Amino acid sequence: MNSDTNVLKTLQAINQSAAFNAWAGITISKADSSEVELQLPWRQELGQYSGFLHAGVVGAMLDTACGFAAAANTGKRVLASHYSVSMVAPAIGEMFIARGKVVKAGKRQIFTTAELYSVNDGQTKLVAIGETILMPADE
Amino acid sequence: MNSDTNVLKTLQAINQSAAFNAWAGITISKADSSEVELQLPWRQELGQYSGFLHAGVVGAMLDTACGFAAAANTGKRVLASHYSVSMVAPAIGEMFIARGKVVKAGKRQIFTTAELYSVNDGQTKLVAIGETILMPADE
Amino acid sequence: MNSDTNVLKTLQAINQSAAFNAWAGITISKADSSEVELQLPWRQELGQYSGFLHAGVVGAMLDTACGFAAAANTGKRVLASHYSVSMVAPAIGEMFIARGKVVKAGKRQIFTTAELYSVNDGQTKLVAIGETILMPADE
Amino acid sequence: MNSDTNVLKTLQAINQSAAFNAWAGITISKADSSEVELQLPWRQELGQYSGFLHAGVVGAMLDTACGFAAAANTGKRVLASHYSVSMVAPAIGEMFIARGKVVKAGKRQIFTTAELYSVNDGQTKLVAIGETILMPADE
Repeated sequence: MNSDTNVLKTLQAINQSAAFNAWAGITISKADSSEVELQLPWRQELGQYSGFLHAGVVGAMLDTACGFAAAANTGKRVLASHYSVSMVAPAIGEMFIARGKVVKAGKRQIFTTAELYSVNDGQTKLVAIGETILMPADE
Repeated sequence: MNSDTNVLKTLQAINQSAAFNAWAGITISKADSSEVELQLPWRQELGQYSGFLHAGVVGAMLDTACGFAAAANTGKRVLASHYSVSMVAPAIGEMFIARGKVVKAGKRQIFTTAELYSVNDGQTKLVAIGETILMPADE
Repeated sequence: MNSDTNVLKTLQAINQSAAFNAWAGITISKADSSEVELQLPWRQELGQYSGFLHAGVVGAMLDTACGFAAAANTGKRVLASHYSVSMVAPAIGEMFIARGKVVKAGKRQIFTTAELYSVNDGQTKLVAIGETILMPADE
Repeated sequence: MNSDTNVLKTLQAINQSAAFNAWAGITISKADSSEVELQLPWRQELGQYSGFLHAGVVGAMLDTACGFAAAANTGKRVLASHYSVSMVAPAIGEMFIARGKVVKAGKRQIFTTAELYSVNDGQTKLVAIGETILMPADE
């Protein structure tokens, strides 16, 4: 538990140094070596033309959850080389929660997946799934 | 040319109604039925922890270029159901340019691809490629 | 249970009518509305140049597991419009097992994911993950 | 031209050592450092349940074209770590042609894209697009 607390604090420090995450309002609500959870309250600036969460922000949440999960799992700085996003339901909500986890951490590539949920009146709903392939930043 | 001017104006109006695009600073520099080009000047708030363009913003540029290309080509409002992004070089630049085009516009799905370039001292460099699958919004 | 038996029999009949699956030796070992499991014994003809299971066959197993999971879940004939494959470990084994499940069955698109395992001396190991987007065949 | 002839011969030798490619009937019709072209005549065993080219074989053609393009471009043995396939039209034909090219050959990852065409009565039609990320096999 102590080490998980350290993992969380380390990731929160990195998260604050990521200007986009700070602007968007992404916070880390949980983190250990098996899963990282992010939260993002809805606001107008995050929307596309019809008021859904912008697909780019959907991708940012999924990719960031994956990246932090990879960092938590490997203890290394990582860079995404590929990610994909599937929008399975309209991304409408007061709040969004992303959960990322590591599928396989190899020496050269780290494979991760993530899910994005909307929260409306306390109801949680899956709105997107994604995956990211990362590489250690300083190999 | 007249119709292309109309396409450009229509897309620019939609772009202004997309709050995220307005905040980020995404503008449409060219648009016709075969290709759409977007521009995004670099600023601090668009970066991840090491100062590259955030992967989510890379995705936003590619997905937005694809979405506008699909809208320009089909004349319909569209929604992304899937997209993927490959980061082929560090996304560092004073300016970023995305070009999206339609590969195949079917009745139920529109397949598109896009490329993202960085601009540094007038030098243009490919930094990411991506693809988006879209559906007509109001089928 | 009775209905799951029917699901299994229906899918096995479809599987036999798929010439590639019959040639490759793909069989359905389990099927219900939440998951479908396929088996494929290794043989020489399934390999690429260094003796691993060919990436195309890895994709065939994942995509087929996804397709049957979608068919089992929705009761409809389906066609894949997109799939992706991540190879997380060398695909070497005496036998391969794929498990596909439905993430979200919408009216126009069905989102599915799958995992591929190798079996060696009774040891099971994750070698690939994938996802498929399907559409009802006769909408 | 001499070096391109050598590239073609080298790839054809590798292709013959890939048991799946030999069984399926995949041949290399062109190869140089910028593009590789494959051909595959239709036969029954390559089909899925409704007689289209099986999605796994579509993926095999795209991934193989990408892999050979990466090998031709870099002169190294390569392994696919990720690929994706979008089926843009029904894959029905007497013959299929895949063309793969390298988008960016980095030290650790090689990014490639490919297109698959059907041929019917001399008419060529785009039926699928895809991309593969490869790694040098023996880094």
